[in-house]
Amino acid sequence: MINVAILGFGVVGGGTAEVLKKNHDIIKEKTGADIRIKHILDLRDFPDSPFAALIRHDFSEIINDPEVDIVIEAMGGAHPAYDFSKAALEAGKSVVTSNKLVVAEFGTELLALARKQGVRYLFEASVGGGIPIIRPIMNDLVQNNITAIDGILNGTTNYILTQMSACGASFSDALAQAKANGYAEADPTADIEGHDAARKIVILAALAYGKCISPSKIHTEGITKISSEDVNLAAKRGYSVKLIGHAEKADGKVLAFVAPRLVPAGSPLRDVSDVFNGILVSCDMLGDAMFYGRGAGKLPTASAVVSDVVDIASNGASGTFAKWEDAAENDIFPFEEYSCRRYFRLAGCRSEIFKAFPDSEEIPSASDEIALISGKTSEKETAEICELLARNGVRVLSHIRVL
Amino acid sequence: MINVAILGFGVVGGGTAEVLKKNHDIIKEKTGADIRIKHILDLRDFPDSPFAALIRHDFSEIINDPEVDIVIEAMGGAHPAYDFSKAALEAGKSVVTSNKLVVAEFGTELLALARKQGVRYLFEASVGGGIPIIRPIMNDLVQNNITAIDGILNGTTNYILTQMSACGASFSDALAQAKANGYAEADPTADIEGHDAARKIVILAALAYGKCISPSKIHTEGITKISSEDVNLAAKRGYSVKLIGHAEKADGKVLAFVAPRLVPAGSPLRDVSDVFNGILVSCDMLGDAMFYGRGAGKLPTASAVVSDVVDIASNGASGTFAKWEDAAENDIFPFEEYSCRRYFRLAGCRSEIFKAFPDSEEIPSASDEIALISGKTSEKETAEICELLARNGVRVLSHIRVL
Repeated sequence: MINVAILGFGVVGGGTAEVLKKNHDIIKEKTGADIRIKHILDLRDFPDSPFAALIRHDFSEIINDPEVDIVIEAMGGAHPAYDFSKAALEAGKSVVTSNKLVVAEFGTELLALARKQGVRYLFEASVGGGIPIIRPIMNDLVQNNITAIDGILNGTTNYILTQMSACGASFSDALAQAKANGYAEADPTADIEGHDAARKIVILAALAYGKCISPSKIHTEGITKISSEDVNLAAKRGYSVKLIGHAEKADGKVLAFVAPRLVPAGSPLRDVSDVFNGILVSCDMLGDAMFYGRGAGKLPTASAVVSDVVDIASNGASGTFAKWEDAAENDIFPFEEYSCRRYFRLAGCRSEIFKAFPDSEEIPSASDEIALISGKTSEKETAEICELLARNGVRVLSHIRVL
Repeated sequence: MINVAILGFGVVGGGTAEVLKKNHDIIKEKTGADIRIKHILDLRDFPDSPFAALIRHDFSEIINDPEVDIVIEAMGGAHPAYDFSKAALEAGKSVVTSNKLVVAEFGTELLALARKQGVRYLFEASVGGGIPIIRPIMNDLVQNNITAIDGILNGTTNYILTQMSACGASFSDALAQAKANGYAEADPTADIEGHDAARKIVILAALAYGKCISPSKIHTEGITKISSEDVNLAAKRGYSVKLIGHAEKADGKVLAFVAPRLVPAGSPLRDVSDVFNGILVSCDMLGDAMFYGRGAGKLPTASAVVSDVVDIASNGASGTFAKWEDAAENDIFPFEEYSCRRYFRLAGCRSEIFKAFPDSEEIPSASDEIALISGKTSEKETAEICELLARNGVRVLSHIRVL
């Protein structure tokens, strides 16, 4: 018998209780693990819930219960989620979390603490919702050098971009639609400004390259400036526009950033639509592998949380363990050296524009604006080109990197 | 130090040696496992290979070497691959294989033997080439009831169907193209008749449902009867034609079969193209998850083989273990009761045709033939309808199930 305590009876915590209850028998049949929910911590009471009798209001009741083997942190936010996780590990309990903020900011410390305590700290649900990605990177791809990771990591923004593409909606209309359907929160900043995706790509980069960069230190660009003109012009050349978390190792250093990208035909990420996520992992031996599925939602996220619980119940402390350290300045590849092809929409003198982008390909536009795909240029060169254009009276209306 | 022996120095065996050598250090760094190739069994000599000194011609040298921990069976075919695998397990060595034929036909026996011997029998490379799918089903989806599996499991046929769709090629021209590019063997029967996919869906069904059906007992239909007319007509309604291995549990029994299917827009399988594979696993909690990547090829397949070797090196006999038994007649859902929508291309009296398919949707055809998508009918009902049509002078030119 494995006893678990769930911290937070919101969407993820409630879903986790539901999965553990509904599929208790199949888990036991397949793995032998007999998992019981002993406590659920929440400030509120839930008198009508089938789990009402398990609700606790005092964390000390959980931390001091020697029967609790695993603490599931499903509270969200930095505090007290981090503090409770740390306390649980210090008390010799394994911790499972869906909290990407805590993993990205405090994962290095909590992983080291878990290792010292001979317990585990797992976070499959922190990236890609229900999609298995954390454990596959550790268990299934370890024989590869991961050359790059490109992920559609945020369902809200992918829904908005899909609406803009499919229905010609403006960003603000598509955002309103996402809110109406429950896919965007009242304050959607963390999603649409790319902060959520930034935390997730930081976690994937840490897994792949062993260095964890603080999300605040990576270039993070959201989708608020994407217009339906851009989406339509990109579509003329077979591209879709997606918010992509990208990570790679270059010159022995780690690069990670989040930005909208033009995804070309032929990439399996191009048609990952609506609230789905897709994570493309490029490997030196395997080639490209993509993991696709529901990146959010009550039961999908809970499914990932429970996969961690089952892992601990089956393998104890001897199961696979993420290992990374905080990235030093010197571990981080300078973003200004990142080079790729780029889409621009510009207004101004035609000859000035094509002088600045000599090896570019124009996309015919119905308006006076000029749209083009440039050759490969670095961030630094691009900034210089744009500055020069501005001096010559050319306005850069849009700039989107090509994947 | 973990010592491995590779049986067979062909494509997979050679690739495995290459991955183990090239990525020895990263595997050691990430997992601590120091893996050494001690023997390579082959009938031939390879004087120019960097592995020349490891080549052996006598299996007894391997089986009697107490230092060999893991035997990698990369020979292909039923015999002596099965016999050597069995002998290795009996000698207390773990076995890793890419051989879907042996797993599908003898997996029940070899898994039981491995369990008895306290060693492991792993076969990640037997399905989906390099794509992690076997271990994710066991480790990451175990908290779900798997409601269905639909997989593009054969790269050769997917390449042929992609060519037919993209270039309007006939089946025979596309097959010739596949041969020219090295994607089809001189005798392509096992691929184009669906036998290869049948072995793979049998393995996936066994993992998901605990019952292994002999591939000879499942309905297996290849792609040789697919015409470019069918591909084009299907495309008019947004469908692509794919060879799909399907498994599900219905009324407590297991159904598995292989057949070409019309894959609708909105399915992530629709645009899995060329030699890529995609495996869609539908789960009660997680929803749909897809695993995508290179389903064949030297290094991708070797990557999967080595993931099993690393698993054994890291977790020994305590790692996850597939568990299934041979399906009894009573475990198998009768295929004639399987029900789905269907595409037909027919020649004959229009009113007879639409009397037979009352709730069908016509696809306008440029010829006198009539193409339609029927409502849901079972295999049995369909056979009866087609018989009736034949009596009324209607010829069924094509019948493809809709996914």
